[in-house]
Amino acid sequence: MEIPVVSTTEVLQRYKQVRQQTEELCKPLSKEDYVVQPVVDVSPPKWHLAHTTWFFETLLLKKFNSDYEVFDQDYNYLFNSYYESVGERVLRADRGNLTRPGVDDIYAYRRYVDEAMDSLINGENTLNNEFHKILEIGLNHEQQHQELLVTDIKYILGHNPVFPSYFEEDSVSSGNQSRIADFLEIPAGIYQIGHQSDGFCFDNELGIHQVYLPAYKIMDRLVTNDEYLEFMQAGAYSDFRCWLMEGWEWVKTHKVSNPLYWYKLEGIWHNYNLRGLQPLDGNAPVTHISFFEADAYARWRGMRLPTEFEWETACKMYQPQVPDRAEFQEMWQFMPLPAAGDNFQFYGDAWEWTGSAYRPYPYFKQEEGALGEYNGKFMINQMVLRGGSCATPGDHIRATYRNFFHPHLRWQFTGIRLATHI
Amino acid sequence: MEIPVVSTTEVLQRYKQVRQQTEELCKPLSKEDYVVQPVVDVSPPKWHLAHTTWFFETLLLKKFNSDYEVFDQDYNYLFNSYYESVGERVLRADRGNLTRPGVDDIYAYRRYVDEAMDSLINGENTLNNEFHKILEIGLNHEQQHQELLVTDIKYILGHNPVFPSYFEEDSVSSGNQSRIADFLEIPAGIYQIGHQSDGFCFDNELGIHQVYLPAYKIMDRLVTNDEYLEFMQAGAYSDFRCWLMEGWEWVKTHKVSNPLYWYKLEGIWHNYNLRGLQPLDGNAPVTHISFFEADAYARWRGMRLPTEFEWETACKMYQPQVPDRAEFQEMWQFMPLPAAGDNFQFYGDAWEWTGSAYRPYPYFKQEEGALGEYNGKFMINQMVLRGGSCATPGDHIRATYRNFFHPHLRWQFTGIRLATHI
Amino acid sequence: MEIPVVSTTEVLQRYKQVRQQTEELCKPLSKEDYVVQPVVDVSPPKWHLAHTTWFFETLLLKKFNSDYEVFDQDYNYLFNSYYESVGERVLRADRGNLTRPGVDDIYAYRRYVDEAMDSLINGENTLNNEFHKILEIGLNHEQQHQELLVTDIKYILGHNPVFPSYFEEDSVSSGNQSRIADFLEIPAGIYQIGHQSDGFCFDNELGIHQVYLPAYKIMDRLVTNDEYLEFMQAGAYSDFRCWLMEGWEWVKTHKVSNPLYWYKLEGIWHNYNLRGLQPLDGNAPVTHISFFEADAYARWRGMRLPTEFEWETACKMYQPQVPDRAEFQEMWQFMPLPAAGDNFQFYGDAWEWTGSAYRPYPYFKQEEGALGEYNGKFMINQMVLRGGSCATPGDHIRATYRNFFHPHLRWQFTGIRLATHI
Amino acid sequence: MEIPVVSTTEVLQRYKQVRQQTEELCKPLSKEDYVVQPVVDVSPPKWHLAHTTWFFETLLLKKFNSDYEVFDQDYNYLFNSYYESVGERVLRADRGNLTRPGVDDIYAYRRYVDEAMDSLINGENTLNNEFHKILEIGLNHEQQHQELLVTDIKYILGHNPVFPSYFEEDSVSSGNQSRIADFLEIPAGIYQIGHQSDGFCFDNELGIHQVYLPAYKIMDRLVTNDEYLEFMQAGAYSDFRCWLMEGWEWVKTHKVSNPLYWYKLEGIWHNYNLRGLQPLDGNAPVTHISFFEADAYARWRGMRLPTEFEWETACKMYQPQVPDRAEFQEMWQFMPLPAAGDNFQFYGDAWEWTGSAYRPYPYFKQEEGALGEYNGKFMINQMVLRGGSCATPGDHIRATYRNFFHPHLRWQFTGIRLATHI
Repeated sequence: MEIPVVSTTEVLQRYKQVRQQTEELCKPLSKEDYVVQPVVDVSPPKWHLAHTTWFFETLLLKKFNSDYEVFDQDYNYLFNSYYESVGERVLRADRGNLTRPGVDDIYAYRRYVDEAMDSLINGENTLNNEFHKILEIGLNHEQQHQELLVTDIKYILGHNPVFPSYFEEDSVSSGNQSRIADFLEIPAGIYQIGHQSDGFCFDNELGIHQVYLPAYKIMDRLVTNDEYLEFMQAGAYSDFRCWLMEGWEWVKTHKVSNPLYWYKLEGIWHNYNLRGLQPLDGNAPVTHISFFEADAYARWRGMRLPTEFEWETACKMYQPQVPDRAEFQEMWQFMPLPAAGDNFQFYGDAWEWTGSAYRPYPYFKQEEGALGEYNGKFMINQMVLRGGSCATPGDHIRATYRNFFHPHLRWQFTGIRLATHI
Repeated sequence: MEIPVVSTTEVLQRYKQVRQQTEELCKPLSKEDYVVQPVVDVSPPKWHLAHTTWFFETLLLKKFNSDYEVFDQDYNYLFNSYYESVGERVLRADRGNLTRPGVDDIYAYRRYVDEAMDSLINGENTLNNEFHKILEIGLNHEQQHQELLVTDIKYILGHNPVFPSYFEEDSVSSGNQSRIADFLEIPAGIYQIGHQSDGFCFDNELGIHQVYLPAYKIMDRLVTNDEYLEFMQAGAYSDFRCWLMEGWEWVKTHKVSNPLYWYKLEGIWHNYNLRGLQPLDGNAPVTHISFFEADAYARWRGMRLPTEFEWETACKMYQPQVPDRAEFQEMWQFMPLPAAGDNFQFYGDAWEWTGSAYRPYPYFKQEEGALGEYNGKFMINQMVLRGGSCATPGDHIRATYRNFFHPHLRWQFTGIRLATHI
Repeated sequence: MEIPVVSTTEVLQRYKQVRQQTEELCKPLSKEDYVVQPVVDVSPPKWHLAHTTWFFETLLLKKFNSDYEVFDQDYNYLFNSYYESVGERVLRADRGNLTRPGVDDIYAYRRYVDEAMDSLINGENTLNNEFHKILEIGLNHEQQHQELLVTDIKYILGHNPVFPSYFEEDSVSSGNQSRIADFLEIPAGIYQIGHQSDGFCFDNELGIHQVYLPAYKIMDRLVTNDEYLEFMQAGAYSDFRCWLMEGWEWVKTHKVSNPLYWYKLEGIWHNYNLRGLQPLDGNAPVTHISFFEADAYARWRGMRLPTEFEWETACKMYQPQVPDRAEFQEMWQFMPLPAAGDNFQFYGDAWEWTGSAYRPYPYFKQEEGALGEYNGKFMINQMVLRGGSCATPGDHIRATYRNFFHPHLRWQFTGIRLATHI
Repeated sequence: MEIPVVSTTEVLQRYKQVRQQTEELCKPLSKEDYVVQPVVDVSPPKWHLAHTTWFFETLLLKKFNSDYEVFDQDYNYLFNSYYESVGERVLRADRGNLTRPGVDDIYAYRRYVDEAMDSLINGENTLNNEFHKILEIGLNHEQQHQELLVTDIKYILGHNPVFPSYFEEDSVSSGNQSRIADFLEIPAGIYQIGHQSDGFCFDNELGIHQVYLPAYKIMDRLVTNDEYLEFMQAGAYSDFRCWLMEGWEWVKTHKVSNPLYWYKLEGIWHNYNLRGLQPLDGNAPVTHISFFEADAYARWRGMRLPTEFEWETACKMYQPQVPDRAEFQEMWQFMPLPAAGDNFQFYGDAWEWTGSAYRPYPYFKQEEGALGEYNGKFMINQMVLRGGSCATPGDHIRATYRNFFHPHLRWQFTGIRLATHI
């Protein structure tokens, strides 16, 4: 990764902006909301605040400032996530039992680390590539956790029987998805895959390489709630023929019959979004579905999900420039992205399940030490998602970003785009 | 149950005193501490505060005040515990995920109900036996939850890796258990079992009846930590001969090798109490052991646990008057009960496992409706405990009180008293 | 235990008769039937054949014949059941995976041990109390396994979708239970409990002691299938008020709505017995119900189960002499016990759940060594059953016999007798 | 699939040869061995015998012979495996509890179906493509079960504490793997993937398509036991850095520290093969390892597993002709494949884990009806294996065959071939 030469001021500004955005997202929370962990995949907001801070303390302050004194010795144990090389850690499933240190302690920890980082950045030789590389990873890491913060908060509030809202204002109906979907055609050929610009990327995007793609076509928008309702109304959730075997077992074991956060009240479908429980917007993209559901839907339509290579190729071809992204405050669930006359939108509605298992690129090279545990060790039993959601930080949206989850998970904003061979 | 004639003022005073004591116990908590549920047996402190209030609202205010408006319709669903006859309820295991309503809401709920109860008590004919009977149950119910509050708070704080203290002051060493244990002898005969005074009792204590007891002797104090250490040091935790078969499986499955809250730090045994992690006090009674451990210890000593009938008979014979109980603030773990020249102490150090399974008395009659779900339906696979612990409200201590838990549980203050036949 | 003086011939004759009866029970089996273990509680018939033989080899031949050479060194490991003091053993749940040694090997093992036992018994001083005591335990142990053989075979065949029969002839309808049940009255008083005759008994029956019983009455026959159907038709399986809490959870988790082996075919209730799937005999005692079901049924009738002391006292009072027992071939399920004008029948229809948890008698003393693992270590979380079933060897039927199972188990022939206080 | 024109005699001969080979494999079994199912992945040999027969009965006889009477109506329920479209079926985990129908019944079933098939084949128009296509699938299906038969028998015998042998003769040491491994180089380019010859293949091999491969090199033999021992001796099983995260959890949960069937006896490594427990042959390929172990081994060597496309391309390039395969009786575990001067051997030592997740080819088209459930619905959370093992029927060995298993499974003959980019 080439680190572009930027001024200390710019670095500091970016650092502060990212750190502040994290705290901004927590403003609507009560202290109680910060603490709990309703399922193992969801982490308490307090934990996100502390863990992202721990990253800077452990991988930068302790390494590049020999005088640095850690805020609290226990925090390495408490807020390490899965980095085996950095020592023992609290089991993931127990994160929700840690009432102490409290929310105020964690904010004090953030202040303490931010001040130390300020000094360090000011003092650091901006040509120190190693420092800037890790700093950049730390900021991207925090941005990833911003997205998890939103989805985890949604899970915590959306599983509370009183359905509290996160936002105060009412929702605005979406409209830009009502048009008939079109299919974009891509001819057979050899295409380039992977990240090659100057900007930041994760190690799993590297190893630029070529793939051969047969000709295919790909939908120019996501599948809508109304379209997904047709699948439900056709009885697909009780027809084994639509499903992968493990998907069918998942449906039966968990008695799944609709996307997460959908509730039928007095005969009318509602879904929970960050403004509370609301009547379903039929034109909005369907979200919070598992890979199993996305795959079943595609099969039922006689099509399939695109591979991650097809997705990336179509994206680079039809939407080379990432649009100015709507702010987080304008997430589509209540105020959609300005359609702007586009007939094609690849980014930001929802993470799109692809048909590709998450495996390394040909030239994948894992980082040394703790940073090497970032991506590579998860490359089994997970599926790749591309794009980004309303909760994704705007500058994280890029054509090469490889997100990944297990095929049964639904608490992220996940959606469906169809493809087929020509 | 005969309800003695008391004045409205006395009733109100008792009501307020009980309600206030609950809140007193929560004073050292941070807001975060109120919310979590680290294991299914432990409930969040917030839930205890609300559930005890729900009891008064549901079983008194809604019944005896036709104008009463409930504080919040959702609360019946949220804070019902196991009363199937009062409707749907949140699954016990999910109590720790409810960040809303918040702590402040719950205190407002308590205020609201307390005011309504104040009016109701003032307005109620004190001769209305039904009202007073349920009120008395409600207060005893809240007192039982006070005890659970303490043990649950201990669990929440004592399983936090930073071991926060609940009390601020340091512990004072216990002394009254260092003497050699003596055994009290009780001759064979027919003895009366069950509650018969005017005071309050639960339905499971009723049905006074006779039992025949062969001659036996019973220890005049509880087993101490030092005595229990001998058992550990003799290798009992790895010798199957000491254990019931299910106990042996429990030991192996959970890799148990010492009481709950014991930690060996640099070769020295410590245990966590409400003042933090402290060196073990060898003269204090061993606590936080399962029935399996109590039973194994007794077997290893060539003795056995007393039956609940032996316990009750010895207690009535040797300690007919319940002593003025030390206040909660003086729990033995840091400041023992004044020994006061007694050579016998039956109450208040720890709940004592007996050798009796929890089954109904011969004339047991379950209450009608929701109150009937209080005790009877738990009468399987649990063992009776007698006495009371440092966390037990003083006026709950009585010779006939039947506490009960599953044989593997340890989060209560549970201890051991030995017996044997003569 | 006093061992009566008997001649070597008599001892040998009894030995051979017991051993032969075990093999008799296996005659209807195919080789395949000998091997499997459909649930952990059920053992493969082959295992019963070998394990009972292992008992004689390990506890008699190796001890009393210094020249004895074991049949196969591996068998101690393979056919030890739960005796921790005799070494390592195959996990209970894995018994059904041992295809080798084969059925023929096991019969050869039985021959080998029987010959060695023949010599040993002939050579042994009949005054050697220790030898005869263990021999007697070994024979009783084998008889207990005869009963398990029958219930395990029933489970294996009765859970096969083709419902094979064990017997060839058809069933004969039962009639002796159709009369209205009567209740026998027993006055309050002190009664003697425990085994005191010269005959054999297990350690858990010893420690003769007195109990005081309030006056009560007890049903003079078992509850019938027709009576149990009334309970089912009243909706009791879906009414929480009938059930202990753990019983209610068991009903919901396992979707229980009728006794084991009951099937409704074209609107008519059938049950599987050893002659195949047959229409339900309404007058026969209900069997294969759990303690939870027995307890719920009693509660629904406004009564309760007798304690084990009430059962034993009534039995000794009303039926002091054990009747000549019907042969195994005439089990009630297809040919009932001759009613013989009796208005009272305590034995042999089914094991009767009592309301007593399985705990030690006051003077219970566990045997030393392996024999001590026979009964005592199971004294937790199990309920006592009294009486005996059609599968119980006739000379095992006695007023003091304490059988025990966990409250959810149903694969034994278990039934219900009601009691209540007067 | 083009079905080549062959004579009825040839068809019948092939049918009989395949059917006979299945029974040949069962000759060393005792009746008891036929019945059990020690883990859910393993099926009882009896079940394989019946299920393969059920396939011909259900998908050919019932369809192409309107007069055909099924052998037993229950068998559709009993011996259906996972074909949801053919009706209800016994749960996979319960296959090992079916003692009836017995082994003799199953052989009678095979006779009955074989005779009916004989008539049908003789009577059938050999130009009926549909018939021949399904027949061919049925025969390939039975051959796949032959392989499972061997691995399941190995599991049943190899998990018996007495380690019975399957073969009678002793093992012969392998030698052909002792040479230093070489790496074959393949230049970058577009290669053709998928089945295109006239012969039989499964639907998952179809959809011939092109892939672009960067230049790479691939090992010319499998990793040996001695090489794998170096990995073990380097402590890799306790070093998290070698493992995928789910692999590391698998290692810790199951306490894995060596391949399946390896046992260290008095300091010397042995492994169980079909001739019993034998000292480890260091030059033989390591087998019975999970994907997690194969992946960890490759990472530890600084290399990786080949993708399935790399494997197929190298195979087609270097070993276009499948060699005359050694007979099953000469499986390498005791008598290796004749090395024959080859410096390259792609087939038959072990199934080789590839780095490719099992997903559909671009033009994959699932068959209609029951046959469509053959492959497609398993395309999630499994990894592709290529090649074939000593237990694979010789004519199943082909460059395009896609085998697949979950990454933790080890009961197949699975091995490792390394690759890396140039």
